[in-house]
Amino acid sequence: MSLFSNLSSLADKTLAGEESVFVLTDRNVEKALSPLWEESAILGGAKRMVVEAGEESKDISTLASVWEWLSRSGATRGSVMVNVGGGMVTDLGLFAASTFKRGMRRIVNLPTTLLGMVDAAIGGKGGINVGGLKNEAGVFNPAVERITDTAPLLTLPREELLSGYGEMLKSGLIASPYLYTRLTRDIELYLENPQRLSRDVEETVRIKEDIVARDPFEKGERKALNFGHTVGHAIESLLMERGKGVPHGIAVAHGLLVEIILSHTVLGFPSAELYPYSEMLKEWFPRLPLGCKDTDPLLDIMTHDKKNRATSGLINFTLLREAGRFEIDCELEREEVATALDIYRDLTAAL
Amino acid sequence: MSLFSNLSSLADKTLAGEESVFVLTDRNVEKALSPLWEESAILGGAKRMVVEAGEESKDISTLASVWEWLSRSGATRGSVMVNVGGGMVTDLGLFAASTFKRGMRRIVNLPTTLLGMVDAAIGGKGGINVGGLKNEAGVFNPAVERITDTAPLLTLPREELLSGYGEMLKSGLIASPYLYTRLTRDIELYLENPQRLSRDVEETVRIKEDIVARDPFEKGERKALNFGHTVGHAIESLLMERGKGVPHGIAVAHGLLVEIILSHTVLGFPSAELYPYSEMLKEWFPRLPLGCKDTDPLLDIMTHDKKNRATSGLINFTLLREAGRFEIDCELEREEVATALDIYRDLTAAL
Repeated sequence: MSLFSNLSSLADKTLAGEESVFVLTDRNVEKALSPLWEESAILGGAKRMVVEAGEESKDISTLASVWEWLSRSGATRGSVMVNVGGGMVTDLGLFAASTFKRGMRRIVNLPTTLLGMVDAAIGGKGGINVGGLKNEAGVFNPAVERITDTAPLLTLPREELLSGYGEMLKSGLIASPYLYTRLTRDIELYLENPQRLSRDVEETVRIKEDIVARDPFEKGERKALNFGHTVGHAIESLLMERGKGVPHGIAVAHGLLVEIILSHTVLGFPSAELYPYSEMLKEWFPRLPLGCKDTDPLLDIMTHDKKNRATSGLINFTLLREAGRFEIDCELEREEVATALDIYRDLTAAL
Repeated sequence: MSLFSNLSSLADKTLAGEESVFVLTDRNVEKALSPLWEESAILGGAKRMVVEAGEESKDISTLASVWEWLSRSGATRGSVMVNVGGGMVTDLGLFAASTFKRGMRRIVNLPTTLLGMVDAAIGGKGGINVGGLKNEAGVFNPAVERITDTAPLLTLPREELLSGYGEMLKSGLIASPYLYTRLTRDIELYLENPQRLSRDVEETVRIKEDIVARDPFEKGERKALNFGHTVGHAIESLLMERGKGVPHGIAVAHGLLVEIILSHTVLGFPSAELYPYSEMLKEWFPRLPLGCKDTDPLLDIMTHDKKNRATSGLINFTLLREAGRFEIDCELEREEVATALDIYRDLTAAL
């Protein structure tokens, strides 16, 4: 029994009978999961394209090379695409496969990171970055399938685990106070034994899938999933511009604190729950290089987020009344957000 | 009253109240329709991107530049994209807009060629060519809207009119014997007064829209629209490879004759209707540079068409029992198709 036995049989069962299978992965994942290619007859026997690891591959030229590879390798509309990797691979592969010959019949995500398992690989969003803007081109494809097993988590560095952890914290905050409490209380245990996250991963997936099923095209309730992301995305973009890229879910974990502060000031989110979060963030998550002079650039990025209407100048948030009770479309003035960023810096400064 | 008065008011009415409008067009169309930009307040006032004319612009790098232009120009999901042009512009623009920020709210095709009016701009298909293969990447987007007026037909060279005419002949053959009869009988009149085609354009559009509505994702009945196209596409691809590109609908008009011959030999399509078609084709359509030695290359291309299953070696056709009665999924051996190509050459040789 190798680490990947369970995953291999799961994959072979899901893909049983498929004769035309195409696998997209990246160089790091291909190596970290090398036993998988031996153990799974179908994944090992499939045609495989390996792209460079890293967000840089989520671009137009890599998208073009995936289309060209599928075309050259004889993929048809009836073929199956399996995206094996983190969010970069599943986003890129879902977009490429959803548009190859106007859409392949089966598209399967096999997430290998915690962030992928709980977020990127579910919900049917695929896309690439254009002109430095994240997911500026892409598709919604709710028909995407998923194969999840926590074994690959043992191959990840801690930073990658924390990135997924940030999204799990968000899911708990918007929909399950119990999940949220377990995650904040047991973070040390989980980071040391990530396979123990299985049950919580399943719950996080169910939370997202339920919300997505009720609102597949992000008309309303799905905006709940953006909690922590208005600020999180802005932090991520700003640091990326400066060449100090930070994993998505770590930016989100920091964004969550800012938006919990806003939830407190705007909707009365209980302060008793604010401090445990900021303590956990300080103890376990990396500190980010953000100072007072970054407030304006962050606010500028938030104002241009694709979830905002172009003209109002207000910034759109999902906020919480308490853990498990969210409110979408809270439109705030820049000043209110600037104040929350000040409080965030005070709370996280005493490291 | 200019030639484009009616089209201008139609556009302004359709787009009334829209504040964020983006127009994609090509250099030839921008010039040929120059009064339109003066007369339509909304189209004239919109942000406009002008790409080079010609099939070469339906490629990855132009797609990327459309995404970048939308992004730079402040387009949001709530903006409207209006594609003003022939099939290249509407295919490219529909794909770009359907994927920009994962899909713009309103996408409107304003076809300026006969082929666009009756075929390319309706039915929700968008796409680009990849690695020399037509529409290898793209989307189905049934929500696309349409503004049609025949005035732009007066700006077209005859070859462009004939290209649209080929698709209209097909629609008549699969669904309306009366339309088919009018088009074959009155071709001279129509080519000299293309605005008289209005009623027939509407009927052709309705035929396609009805079929697409019943089968938006090409699971069955929509394959009727492929009549003439298995051979037509192969002719188009072969001649393009040789640098002797031919307009799509002219290749289809020739493909129709080959597939009418197959309909006769396989399903008993009446020979009395075969000869009038071949006579009309010879008299009005350009002859194509195809000889005996082209049979094998054409068959090879057909075998790899995306509508065929990868493994059978058979070639998939839609054929006719008589005008208005089609049969999808007729799978034929290469030899049967080779024979039809021989007969086609005999029928069209005596020019």
